[in-house]
Amino acid sequence: MPQQRFYTLTASCPDRVGIVARVSGFFAAHGGWILETNLHADREDNRYFMRIEVKAESLPFLLAELRERFRPLAEEFGMTWKITDSAVKKRVVVLVSKQEHCLYDLLSRWQSKELDIEIPCVISNHDTFRGFVEWHGIPFHHVPVTSDNKAAAYAEVQRIIEDVRGDCIVLARYMQILSPELCEAYPGRILNIHHSFLPSFVGAKPYHQAYQRGVKLIGATCHYVTAELDQGPIIDQDVIRVDHSDSVEDMVRYGKDIEKAVLARGLRYHLEDRVLLHGNKTIVFR
Amino acid sequence: MPQQRFYTLTASCPDRVGIVARVSGFFAAHGGWILETNLHADREDNRYFMRIEVKAESLPFLLAELRERFRPLAEEFGMTWKITDSAVKKRVVVLVSKQEHCLYDLLSRWQSKELDIEIPCVISNHDTFRGFVEWHGIPFHHVPVTSDNKAAAYAEVQRIIEDVRGDCIVLARYMQILSPELCEAYPGRILNIHHSFLPSFVGAKPYHQAYQRGVKLIGATCHYVTAELDQGPIIDQDVIRVDHSDSVEDMVRYGKDIEKAVLARGLRYHLEDRVLLHGNKTIVFR
Amino acid sequence: MPQQRFYTLTASCPDRVGIVARVSGFFAAHGGWILETNLHADREDNRYFMRIEVKAESLPFLLAELRERFRPLAEEFGMTWKITDSAVKKRVVVLVSKQEHCLYDLLSRWQSKELDIEIPCVISNHDTFRGFVEWHGIPFHHVPVTSDNKAAAYAEVQRIIEDVRGDCIVLARYMQILSPELCEAYPGRILNIHHSFLPSFVGAKPYHQAYQRGVKLIGATCHYVTAELDQGPIIDQDVIRVDHSDSVEDMVRYGKDIEKAVLARGLRYHLEDRVLLHGNKTIVFR
Amino acid sequence: MPQQRFYTLTASCPDRVGIVARVSGFFAAHGGWILETNLHADREDNRYFMRIEVKAESLPFLLAELRERFRPLAEEFGMTWKITDSAVKKRVVVLVSKQEHCLYDLLSRWQSKELDIEIPCVISNHDTFRGFVEWHGIPFHHVPVTSDNKAAAYAEVQRIIEDVRGDCIVLARYMQILSPELCEAYPGRILNIHHSFLPSFVGAKPYHQAYQRGVKLIGATCHYVTAELDQGPIIDQDVIRVDHSDSVEDMVRYGKDIEKAVLARGLRYHLEDRVLLHGNKTIVFR
Repeated sequence: MPQQRFYTLTASCPDRVGIVARVSGFFAAHGGWILETNLHADREDNRYFMRIEVKAESLPFLLAELRERFRPLAEEFGMTWKITDSAVKKRVVVLVSKQEHCLYDLLSRWQSKELDIEIPCVISNHDTFRGFVEWHGIPFHHVPVTSDNKAAAYAEVQRIIEDVRGDCIVLARYMQILSPELCEAYPGRILNIHHSFLPSFVGAKPYHQAYQRGVKLIGATCHYVTAELDQGPIIDQDVIRVDHSDSVEDMVRYGKDIEKAVLARGLRYHLEDRVLLHGNKTIVFR
Repeated sequence: MPQQRFYTLTASCPDRVGIVARVSGFFAAHGGWILETNLHADREDNRYFMRIEVKAESLPFLLAELRERFRPLAEEFGMTWKITDSAVKKRVVVLVSKQEHCLYDLLSRWQSKELDIEIPCVISNHDTFRGFVEWHGIPFHHVPVTSDNKAAAYAEVQRIIEDVRGDCIVLARYMQILSPELCEAYPGRILNIHHSFLPSFVGAKPYHQAYQRGVKLIGATCHYVTAELDQGPIIDQDVIRVDHSDSVEDMVRYGKDIEKAVLARGLRYHLEDRVLLHGNKTIVFR
Repeated sequence: MPQQRFYTLTASCPDRVGIVARVSGFFAAHGGWILETNLHADREDNRYFMRIEVKAESLPFLLAELRERFRPLAEEFGMTWKITDSAVKKRVVVLVSKQEHCLYDLLSRWQSKELDIEIPCVISNHDTFRGFVEWHGIPFHHVPVTSDNKAAAYAEVQRIIEDVRGDCIVLARYMQILSPELCEAYPGRILNIHHSFLPSFVGAKPYHQAYQRGVKLIGATCHYVTAELDQGPIIDQDVIRVDHSDSVEDMVRYGKDIEKAVLARGLRYHLEDRVLLHGNKTIVFR
Repeated sequence: MPQQRFYTLTASCPDRVGIVARVSGFFAAHGGWILETNLHADREDNRYFMRIEVKAESLPFLLAELRERFRPLAEEFGMTWKITDSAVKKRVVVLVSKQEHCLYDLLSRWQSKELDIEIPCVISNHDTFRGFVEWHGIPFHHVPVTSDNKAAAYAEVQRIIEDVRGDCIVLARYMQILSPELCEAYPGRILNIHHSFLPSFVGAKPYHQAYQRGVKLIGATCHYVTAELDQGPIIDQDVIRVDHSDSVEDMVRYGKDIEKAVLARGLRYHLEDRVLLHGNKTIVFR
């Protein structure tokens, strides 16, 4: 069925009696038809998290007015909040190096509208996938990164992201460590796929580390990028079984299947505003 | 931490604007502190499902009065509903035959209070586990079932269940098909663990069937018992990988691990009032 | 590391004392360096299965002579056998309809040489993916299939397969039922991905069937195609968890991730001669 | 079917041409009927590993003579090897503290002969499970461990193990760190279940660590105990999904199900001589 237009409220605030009553009462008072509600009370930090989808056409005003009308309530409860519109496609900038699996996977989902997003451009430190990306009608930017030009290169990457008004940045096996400036410019908006089951095997060559330790499962982790390498909030993870007969090369190969699936899931949660940050952890309203 | 006492409302009704607002408003008006809320709108059948935990001591009245005060609202929305009290332990009658794995598993969870239930008795068509059960201080009833005495046997089983005021009945690999009368006497209150991934391999010897078909995963299914064999609403399922080197005996052995885990999970969801029936399907608010 | 050239013997025969001794003795006598050995005795049918990789350069003769020299031993034991050469790329014909996920996935693996195969052509009953396929330098054949032209259409498909000397045919979500003639022309050489956990939900719209039954896991099955729909030998299967909040559309979406992963695994096993047929079952030497 | 008696050869040696030919030739020359063969060549270290089950009655001599006759061949190839007899039950000493789940699980498997072992005694630093263990007819030893008496306590534990001629020691959630002397007295014979997915979350309170890091899967690891805490060779691992709604207590509860399943699998592999050590890694011939 054709997806109907809806607004998504995500909010968090100190927990107290009556939050849901007031918020759902607000929508009900305007005839708002709620499609989906997810609520979570963190008992340790006494903080409340919510995500509510309301059918756009059920409300008697537009998004700007909805935000204005909701603002006093949000302020009363001390909320961190936003309301997004399902009709506004998010703009996802993809960064890639020389491995193809996540790139093919993302473009496949984009091409079929499984991910209903805009990809305003792909940026790479190699020219490898120019033809493939451009064939899809997507601009491709080759920004080489060397040990000498990092500052300039990341300034250029940031300039491009700003230029195309990217909402979110996906490191689709981008084999470079972003500059702290870039990480901090887009908090909660840069997603990485790390090829290990974090916190195991931080840093370089995690499959080699996994092979050396003799683990029986290998994994991948989709997380938000922060300035501290591989330490950002985890969005999703998964694992696959390996055994003694698997070489590092086999692990790399199995890992690719996990990586692309976990990255796609994590990205989807992010795009649908299902991920709320809570310190260095995430609430993911599946 | 010691679990605090709470009431659990579960309800379903036709979907319309304002359900959550009214229900959460009801609790807020009385100062009710909500611990957990789960909501689901079935868009196909336009039906709304909810489960709300509210801290008992936050309300200024007791359970009976809560029920009385909530009733008008429930009737207004045409709800099927109930409110349970976490301080009232459920009484779980366990039926078992000659396989030990689910019985040991359940008594282990009962002994450690992981399952905070009463087991008023165990009923079996064999005398095998009398000593084990009685050692735990639980009464044991041997009710033999033969092709000739089924009606009388199940009447006796039902009499025992009534006698001990069983809230729920668990078929912990009870290798007999209950009489339709017994199934219908306890709708949504008898849980079975079937040793296949339903709807594959209904009926007898599912591991033999799985072996013959050459499947690469085998599974188990926890479901409510209805008069139609292995067709009741599914609560939980899981699978485990097998391969060509596994004999039927190996599958039986692997299967036992899945069976006891899935049964325990399904039972827990049931006991915590996390399972709502929707036709022949379940809503499970994990 | 660069993969070294090797020969792969796969064989099955009635079980008896001394099979491994004779076969491994044969290779040892010629200085053959064995890279990998997999053996399986089916105790029910008393049949023996083996797969042996031997380093090509360790033998003092070429493949044709290896086959000649091995033949008497194979005949003595009544073996069904073959020896393949890792240096000869298999020719995989891909059939596709209008869904992109398996096609993108296979071309991604082909492009990166993760699957070191030739794809001599893609055949489709729709023209949808002509541009994408041809961009990769792979010929594309549009063979429409209607209720009226099935015989002619499948004759054309078969003609193309013969023309390009296809070793194996992959139905990458090809939404048509092949003619019995086509199925029988390539026994053990046509791989399909069925979008359910067989034997559950045979035939059309399995995700709708799964949704109706209320299962808690959905799956996909890679199997060899036989004339009987969805009944062929299973090569690999996998599942993913779903719950009451997932619509049929969600299941379709989750299912795609399982489908492409399971198809790719099954195809890889097939291409590496790791799948031996045993009646309607498979031995898969991972 | 009744399990037939068999001998199991496990061996490892430097890889070279002809190992399998010679070993299988040895058995064939004596009419030995091989039930199962598993072989592995480690290409990095150029070492060969094997496990062969041969039907006892197919050989014209007894175990002692089999060993004598095999010895020259083993020496020629520089093998580390042993041959065990399926008719000799292994003697498994279980160490436990105050958590019941692994203990119930092991005794359940022992009681049903799924694990066909002897349990000559259970040793605990608490008296909690004396009644339960003794009800099963198994001797129970209470050996308190305090910060002051560790040396004496572990000497006592070792004395008991020696006294009952324990073949293998299982730490079934034994919440004490063994003395280095004890670890080194039984290399490759002490199995532990660690309640995390190693190498993540070494040491105390791994579920608290997992909760703090916000991982989306938690796990358990069965490994051989060495003097270095949680660093021994991994035999098996598994994971289960968690999310933001799960408290530490929930994780502990989910974790118990994984712990007992992984411990039981790892123990079974060990008892069936399916685990071969290779440095700090394991070959597990499933």
